[in-house]
Amino acid sequence: MASYRTTATEFLASGETVENYVRSLLDRIAVRDPDVQAWAYLDPEYVLSQARQLDAIPVSQRGQLHGIPIGVKDIMYTQDMPTQYNSPIYQGDAPVVDAALVAMLRSAGALIFGKTTTTEFASVTTGTKTRNPHGPTRTPGGSSSGSGAAVGDLQVPVALGTQTFGSLIRPASFNGIFAFKPTWGAISREGVKICSLTLDTMGFFARSVADLELLAEAVKLEDDEKVHAPFKVVGAKFAVCKTHVWPKVGPGTVDALNLAVQLLRAQGAAVDELELPDEFAIITTAHQQVLQRDARTSFMSQYIRAKSQLDPQLIEFVENPISNRDYLTGLDVLASLRPKMDHILNAYAAILTPSAVDEAPEGLASTGSPALCGMWTALHVPVVNIPGFVGKHGMPIGLSLVAARHQDRRLLRVCASVAPIFEGGGWKSGFFKSSHE
Amino acid sequence: MASYRTTATEFLASGETVENYVRSLLDRIAVRDPDVQAWAYLDPEYVLSQARQLDAIPVSQRGQLHGIPIGVKDIMYTQDMPTQYNSPIYQGDAPVVDAALVAMLRSAGALIFGKTTTTEFASVTTGTKTRNPHGPTRTPGGSSSGSGAAVGDLQVPVALGTQTFGSLIRPASFNGIFAFKPTWGAISREGVKICSLTLDTMGFFARSVADLELLAEAVKLEDDEKVHAPFKVVGAKFAVCKTHVWPKVGPGTVDALNLAVQLLRAQGAAVDELELPDEFAIITTAHQQVLQRDARTSFMSQYIRAKSQLDPQLIEFVENPISNRDYLTGLDVLASLRPKMDHILNAYAAILTPSAVDEAPEGLASTGSPALCGMWTALHVPVVNIPGFVGKHGMPIGLSLVAARHQDRRLLRVCASVAPIFEGGGWKSGFFKSSHE
Repeated sequence: MASYRTTATEFLASGETVENYVRSLLDRIAVRDPDVQAWAYLDPEYVLSQARQLDAIPVSQRGQLHGIPIGVKDIMYTQDMPTQYNSPIYQGDAPVVDAALVAMLRSAGALIFGKTTTTEFASVTTGTKTRNPHGPTRTPGGSSSGSGAAVGDLQVPVALGTQTFGSLIRPASFNGIFAFKPTWGAISREGVKICSLTLDTMGFFARSVADLELLAEAVKLEDDEKVHAPFKVVGAKFAVCKTHVWPKVGPGTVDALNLAVQLLRAQGAAVDELELPDEFAIITTAHQQVLQRDARTSFMSQYIRAKSQLDPQLIEFVENPISNRDYLTGLDVLASLRPKMDHILNAYAAILTPSAVDEAPEGLASTGSPALCGMWTALHVPVVNIPGFVGKHGMPIGLSLVAARHQDRRLLRVCASVAPIFEGGGWKSGFFKSSHE
Repeated sequence: MASYRTTATEFLASGETVENYVRSLLDRIAVRDPDVQAWAYLDPEYVLSQARQLDAIPVSQRGQLHGIPIGVKDIMYTQDMPTQYNSPIYQGDAPVVDAALVAMLRSAGALIFGKTTTTEFASVTTGTKTRNPHGPTRTPGGSSSGSGAAVGDLQVPVALGTQTFGSLIRPASFNGIFAFKPTWGAISREGVKICSLTLDTMGFFARSVADLELLAEAVKLEDDEKVHAPFKVVGAKFAVCKTHVWPKVGPGTVDALNLAVQLLRAQGAAVDELELPDEFAIITTAHQQVLQRDARTSFMSQYIRAKSQLDPQLIEFVENPISNRDYLTGLDVLASLRPKMDHILNAYAAILTPSAVDEAPEGLASTGSPALCGMWTALHVPVVNIPGFVGKHGMPIGLSLVAARHQDRRLLRVCASVAPIFEGGGWKSGFFKSSHE
């Protein structure tokens, strides 16, 4: 029987009613919300009425995501709910329109469940009200704070997020779940707040790779070569890539990466150590310069309309911008490195690299460092966070697998085989097993 | 006294009431609309009520665009009007939100006047109901058909458009007006239908360079070096660049370009002939491949929701996409050519190049060829169409001035000095002189 522990894929196979499934989720939320506070907007009665409407659809007319409850980061338009960006400027604002991604999921039968918390405009590291479900004194990460926490706390099976720096992969690591950042531009960003035109990327949180594949299929994300067969880890070649940001990494991530390499090798995979050419070291600077200059353009409208209600960091982007000269240098160097990185990545099944500095840090004031993620966001490559490892304080730690641009579906196939191996990483949460386990 | 002939800059200096100005425009529209049909949505009573509200604002509290009537291409959200994209899918749709650019202009005191016609989603060359005001059997161009025609017909002084291929510069040339396509990404695209994430560019139509500068100032478009002094044509160095698309050009454009070179030289400018390196010839193919593959992503939502109501060309983009491999090759080659083009451009005050194949062709079925514009859109450089020349059938022909990325304001300064020179190009329209002439 479907419970709040049920993943999307499991629910579709269960034959359970949507109403029963969402009642279980709403009950879970009623108990857990005071501790976790993942929602910017949630109307249980509306959720139930949608569920009943979906249950009334004849089986033959149901979509491929029939009844899947999906949390939506509160920077994406939803025609039936407010979109408030965690900004006082947009308090109560409710444009009557769906973002393109929301529209696609709704068309496929998904139940748009509620809006999840975000840092202000998904563009600062100041924390939200949301707490880490596995340690309520700790951050759930950001900027997709509510999506990460809601999926990590079994409040919904799937949620939507975005990443400009580390806003999908970091919260996934902190909450012990999967996140999938597809190739930049592979999913329409229509109806979503822009932070950086050249970096923002749409993505998904879930508790299984099967669910990520279900979502990728629903939005017709396609590689040139279709791959259906399971990926074989034995004999496959991976590389561990510490990147030039490695000195920032804490002991939890160091141990996780070492253990992951052992686990892969124990399954018969080859794992090289990949040292990137020196020219890639510039990415950190270039990524930040591009982000900040893009943010000037993206927040000019809010700045002109309501400067006094804008986070000081965003005002700074507008008033003291990176020069156009430095911006163009950054844009052009990132563009020149992308095909080079694709070439490197194509030698491997995937690259293994840290998702976050360490387990989720104490405190809610900051969402933690995105430093480990910026490089891959800037390179536009697909990344999946795979959970399984554990930090000194018992909090989850995930690791990233990375592939070349537009090899999204192949990367998911690799992750489907690697994820069970990483379950040997030692992280266990009392409430975290799926309904079939 | 302000009349429908008055430009935005002239109106601001006139001391006239907004109500009188818009009454003159509405009277003009009442006479001309049956012939031109530039509007997808226009409510004269609402325009007048906005005008009276603006007139009631104390002078000390007025914005820098106080009372300027602006037409908005119907692919941009307006909180108080429908946004219908010339698509049956969105008939009557009215999201309660402003696009970022609309919000900025409204905050500066502009009067959002109405929605102008567009080809379906600004993404096909099938014509709209709109006719060329200078020859009603001819196309006004597209995809910003209504914006081009409305400004060309003196129905509003300023209108908004977008360009992915040639949707600002081509209609400006066909309607005998100015269009400004700023550097890609320089103005937020939030709240605007995406056709190509990597190519779509926001821009403006107006009947004077001063108006374009007014708009650029209002949205805080800034070069690294601020330039206020008038640009001196005498002694300046231009280059005429025929590009590899030159064989497509008709006799009207050939004559216009030759005459423009003569006029500039007569004013003491040097005009080189610039032949681009062979590697730039690939841009035509790369631009189209990137556009088509981006369009697959951008129209997937409409395809999933309502395929039967989508233009066959857009269905084709989704169902028979360019491969990811070809797309990435296109993306990367365009990115590599952008700094090279900047370097070439930086040797000149501006490059002079055709805006369109020739004068606006006969018929409304097609909006004409954008072939001359695609290269500059793909290179992300700022372009201004300057009118002044005339074709065999008495229709206007404009020419483009182009500068390096993020030299938008400097390019406008150059255009302010070049535009009066191009008035020697021979095009005259009976109704086309400003109120001060």
